Order: sequence, then C-alpha cells, then structure tokens
Amino acid sequence: MRGGGAMARLAVAARAFSASASAGAGAGGVSMVQGASRGIGLEFVRQLLRRSEQGRVVATCRAPDAAAELQKLKDEHAPGRLTVLPLDVTDETTIQAAAASVRETHGSLDLLINSTGILSIPDVIQPETTLSKVEKSSLMLAYEVNAVGPILVIKHMWPLLKVGGCSKTGRGFSLVANMSARVSSIADNGLGGWHSYRASKTALNQLTKTVSVEFGRKDNIACILLHPGTVDTDLSRPFQRNVPKDKLFMREFSVQKLLSVIDNVKKSDNGKFFAWDGQEIPW
Amino acid sequence: MRGGGAMARLAVAARAFSASASAGAGAGGVSMVQGASRGIGLEFVRQLLRRSEQGRVVATCRAPDAAAELQKLKDEHAPGRLTVLPLDVTDETTIQAAAASVRETHGSLDLLINSTGILSIPDVIQPETTLSKVEKSSLMLAYEVNAVGPILVIKHMWPLLKVGGCSKTGRGFSLVANMSARVSSIADNGLGGWHSYRASKTALNQLTKTVSVEFGRKDNIACILLHPGTVDTDLSRPFQRNVPKDKLFMREFSVQKLLSVIDNVKKSDNGKFFAWDGQEIPW
Ligand SMILES: NC(=O)c1ccc[n+]([C@@H]2O[C@H](COP(=O)([O-])OP(=O)(O)OC[C@H]3O[C@@H](n4cnc5c(N)ncnc54)[C@H](OP(=O)(O)O)[C@@H]3O)[C@@H](O)[C@H]2O)c1
Ligand SMILES: NC(=O)c1ccc[n+]([C@@H]2O[C@H](COP(=O)([O-])OP(=O)(O)OC[C@H]3O[C@@H](n4cnc5c(N)ncnc54)[C@H](OP(=O)(O)O)[C@@H]3O)[C@@H](O)[C@H]2O)c1
Repeated sequence: MRGGGAMARLAVAARAFSASASAGAGAGGVSMVQGASRGIGLEFVRQLLRRSEQGRVVATCRAPDAAAELQKLKDEHAPGRLTVLPLDVTDETTIQAAAASVRETHGSLDLLINSTGILSIPDVIQPETTLSKVEKSSLMLAYEVNAVGPILVIKHMWPLLKVGGCSKTGRGFSLVANMSARVSSIADNGLGGWHSYRASKTALNQLTKTVSVEFGRKDNIACILLHPGTVDTDLSRPFQRNVPKDKLFMREFSVQKLLSVIDNVKKSDNGKFFAWDGQEIPW
Repeated sequence: MRGGGAMARLAVAARAFSASASAGAGAGGVSMVQGASRGIGLEFVRQLLRRSEQGRVVATCRAPDAAAELQKLKDEHAPGRLTVLPLDVTDETTIQAAAASVRETHGSLDLLINSTGILSIPDVIQPETTLSKVEKSSLMLAYEVNAVGPILVIKHMWPLLKVGGCSKTGRGFSLVANMSARVSSIADNGLGGWHSYRASKTALNQLTKTVSVEFGRKDNIACILLHPGTVDTDLSRPFQRNVPKDKLFMREFSVQKLLSVIDNVKKSDNGKFFAWDGQEIPW
C-alpha cells in the first residue's frame, strides 16, 4: 500500500495543496473540531480560522470556561466565526446538546474532525509495556473515549452532515476525519505493548470503516482516518524520549499536512486511513 | 493473502491432518476450552476428548451446574479427563480462580481456546443495521465480552502456558487460539452494519497480535485467531435466513477443520488470523 500509488497520491496532494491554499477550497462552510482544548485539535481550530474569512468553526471541549486558548482565539476573530461548546465524549447528553446547538446556530456541518484521544492519565491509565500490566479498567476507558466517543459524535452530527457538503467548501461532500494513530495498524504492529490504546484505535478504524460503508450508500458524506505523525503535545510528551528529533513534529506542521490531506480527499477515498503525508496506512 | 501461499498451506494442512489423526499429534497434554457450555466451544471439548485417551481437557463456562452437555461428557469419559470449572469473562476473579484450580490440578496448559462470544442477546444487544441504532451500552458490552474477556483469560493462564507446550502434544510450543470472525476484517468490510460485534472482534485481533509479539519475544507460546465459518449455533441462528444452505456449517465440520488448522500451526504462524480452511484472513 506504500508503492507507486502512494507516491503519485503524494505528488497530487502537494500540487493540490498549493492550489487550495490560494483558491481557498475547503476553507468555507461550517467545520467542527471535537476535542479542541489542547494539542492537535486546538491547532486545527487555529488554522481553520486563519485560512479564510468566511469559514465558521465550532470547537468543542469538556470545559469551555477553562479553555483559555480557545477563548483567546474567539476574541481574536470576528463575532460568530468561532463557537465554543461543551462536549464530553463519555457523556452522550452533552453530544446531543452540542448537536442541537449547532443545528440552531448553523443548520449544517461540512467538516467534522474528531481529535479527542487518551493515551495516559496519571493514576488512571498508562500504556502497557507487558500483558501482565493490562487492566480491564484501562481497556474499557480507552475504548470508551477513543472508539465509542467519536462514533457517538458522528451519530448525532449525522443529520447536520447530511445537509452540509455544500458548494461553499468547494469539496462537494461532507467529510468526517477521525484521528487514529499508526499504532492502530495490526499489520504494522511489530513492537507490541500499548494494548489499551492500540485496541481502541483499531476498533475506531473498524467503526469508521463501517460507518463509511453506510454513508457511501446513502449520503453525500465521506469518512477518513488520519495519523498525524508523532506530534509534540501533552499526549506524546511522556513518551518522546526515544523519538528522533526529526521525527517529532510541531503541531503547526502536522496540522498543515493533515489539512492538505483533508483538502484533497476524493469521495472515493471514503473509508481510508491516511498518514500526515498522504500515504495510506494498512489495516 | 489468498494466493499460492494459502493454497500450498492448505495442501500441507490436509496432509498433516490425516497424519496427526493417526499419530495423535496435538492430542495429548492439557487443553482448556473457555466458553464451552454450548456451540463451537462445546464441540471443541467433545472432539478433543475423542481424539486420544491421554489428553486432558478443562472446560469452563459461566454455570457448570446448568451445563448438562458438559456434565454428560464428563460422565462418559474416564475420571480426570474432563474438568468443568466456572468462569465468566466479565468477572476477573472467576478467571483468577480458574487459573488457580488448573495450576493445582494440572500444573500447566498446552492449548487454550477462547470460544466465548456474543452477537445478540434479547432486550440487551442486537447487531446494528444502521449507525442510528448504535448504542453506547452495546458497544461497551460487546467489547467487554468479546475483546477484553479473552485477553484477561490469556493474562491469567500465561504462567501455565509458559510451562506447557511440552513434548506430549507433539507441537513443541503452547498455543492460544482466539475465536474471531471474518466480519472483524476491516479490509473485508464491504457490507457495513454490526458495529458493536465487528469493532469488538477487530479489537480482539489487535490485542491478540499485540500479545503474540510479546510471547514471540519471551516465551515458547504462539497465538492465533480463527474464523470458524458460519456455523449452525445459537449465535448465528437469528441471522441464518440469508445464508446459503451449503455455506452454513455443522459444528462437527467446523471444529474438525479448526482442529486441523490448530494441529498444523507452526511457531512462525504466531499472530496470524486463519479461516476454517487454513486460509489467512486480511486485517
Ligand atoms: N500527539 C501524537 O503524537 C499523536 C500520535 C498519533 C495519534 N494522535 C491522536 O491525535 C489526537 C489528538 O492528540 P493530541 O496529541 O492533540 O492529544 P492531547 O494534546 O492530549 O489532547 C487531547 C484532547 O482530547 C481531549 N479529551 C480527552 N478526554 C476527553 C473527553 N472525555 N471528552 C472530550 N474531549 C476529551 C482533551 O481535552 P481536555 O483538555 O478536556 O483534557 C484534549 O483536548 C488523539 O486522538 C491522539 O490519539 C496523537
Ligand atoms: N457461529 C458462527 O457462525 C460464528 C461465526 C464467526 C465467529 N463465531 C465466534 O465463535 C465463537 C463461538 O460462537 P458460537 O457460535 O459457539 O456461540 P454460542 O453458541 O452462542 O456460544 C457462545 C458461548 O459463549 C459463552 N459466553 C457468553 N457470555 C459469556 C461470559 N460472559 N463468560 C463466559 N462465557 C460466555 C456462552 O455461555 P452461556 O451458555 O453461559 O451463555 C456460550 O458457551 C464466538 O466467539 C463467536 O463470535 C461464530
């Protein structure tokens, strides 16, 4: 899957990225970034706001009042360009409330990026180094946040995505992008470990593929999975020691690359899993 | 993955199966079948007991007293050949207790088959036909039983598997076989639906692969995943309407084929996913 096709795709992606950067394709419409308080999600909000004067962005996070960076971005942009809503993926009522709010304010969604993810939380969950450290509670929590959460968000945003995908974005269909991770690839798993995180992201891949099959049949919506590279955020910080300097990306670089992938997705890419550089990742 | 290699494997498997049927390779030692009250698990117990006078079998299920078929098999065989123990994969204390009991009685394990699985339970969980019917409770329950359960069983049986794999089985290493399903394949998912079941089994594939990497590095244990075909059991019964007659297997046939795959597994097959006919299934 990393052969000539991927290289060709990369070249096309590079060309189209410069085109879209000037033409502003994919920059209008309504975009939602779910999991936007920090890290990659926050950077998506920043870059989506910057790329056009027209695009409106909905940023969701667990605690909007504590999300100082998001509130700052809101103040820096024209009224109405950024809406910040509360959403905790483990509490479905907050997902429903966010969907109701977006319906009222915007009426549709053109792009949904699910960025929420957990790998480690002190005293709660740690990436496992061996089977003997695997705990049921960690397996269940990672699944709830990383796999179930994004799928419930898509479920409730589905009616809004159906009426999105309009000409304003230049894309012609609505797009859902779920943040996965290369370690979710079973084919690529040569190292072992990280049981809870790996399994939850692999399940997210399967759920996204399953949803993409239904959308492909019924709706003008495509779903893709993304791997951002190893990116310097709170999530990766405790595990950066063994990452070579040139393999640790800045958030700005990773999100720029991911937006380039998003800009160049075709309807026929529905259900696929792309790395930051546009290469497909095997299941 | 279904090319000449798979055909060659099949031919080798067919030859070796007739050899092992006469020589009794893989028939001795201690085998555990987890999820043995009904269906494919029960049939594994029946065939494992029948294939040699030496092999001892541990069958686990949630309610041994209610498992009439297992109790009948116990009575039909010499004392000590079949042990029936309580084990509910959602209750880790029962897994620990079963491990302690096997340690005391047998001291080791040569083969562990995790057969437990849920697809539908009236009023509790149903395979989803659309995203709008996906419920958090179903996603979580399927994951707990189908993915987390088998991995916790392996975790607690690990010390017994380490001292198993002895010459009695003719295999030379201990083997863990987890019952997956073809619908867990992301690559093969062209139909959609069955979100909870699919995602849980895909996660089981990733967890099994992850464990196989560690075992391959440290221990004389291999792990594989199996797809039994569509088999006439309580699990498939509500969904057999659209299955062509010749594609619906009897339990006897499926388990005979799966035991042939198990008999012919090489250490280098560690981490692979095989269908009943010995063909590898893509992730
Ligand atoms: N960084 C990497 O190297 C890397 C590599 C591969 C994949 N990824 C994936 O990329 C995505 C973004 O990662 P990141 O590095 O940006 O992580 P991060 O900096 O740790 O940010 C994680 C985000 O998830 C949110 N979140 C956690 N639990 C949540 C919940 N229950 N409901 C709603 N939001 C919740 C956090 O919100 P709070 O502020 O409320 O906690 C935070 O905004 C994740 O899916 C991650 O798995 C990252
Ligand atoms: N049949 C098929 O066509 C098919 C196809 C592909 C894959 N599979 C897989 O093959 C395996 C066996 O399926 P089957 O057709 O034999 O299913 P089945 O006849 O419905 O039997 C399921 C078994 O799982 C046990 N179980 C359920 N919940 C449990 C729990 N919490 N703890 C311990 N045991 C539990 C049941 O025990 P109780 O009696 O206590 O309920 C029963 O023994 C499953 O993993 C299934 O996913 C089957």
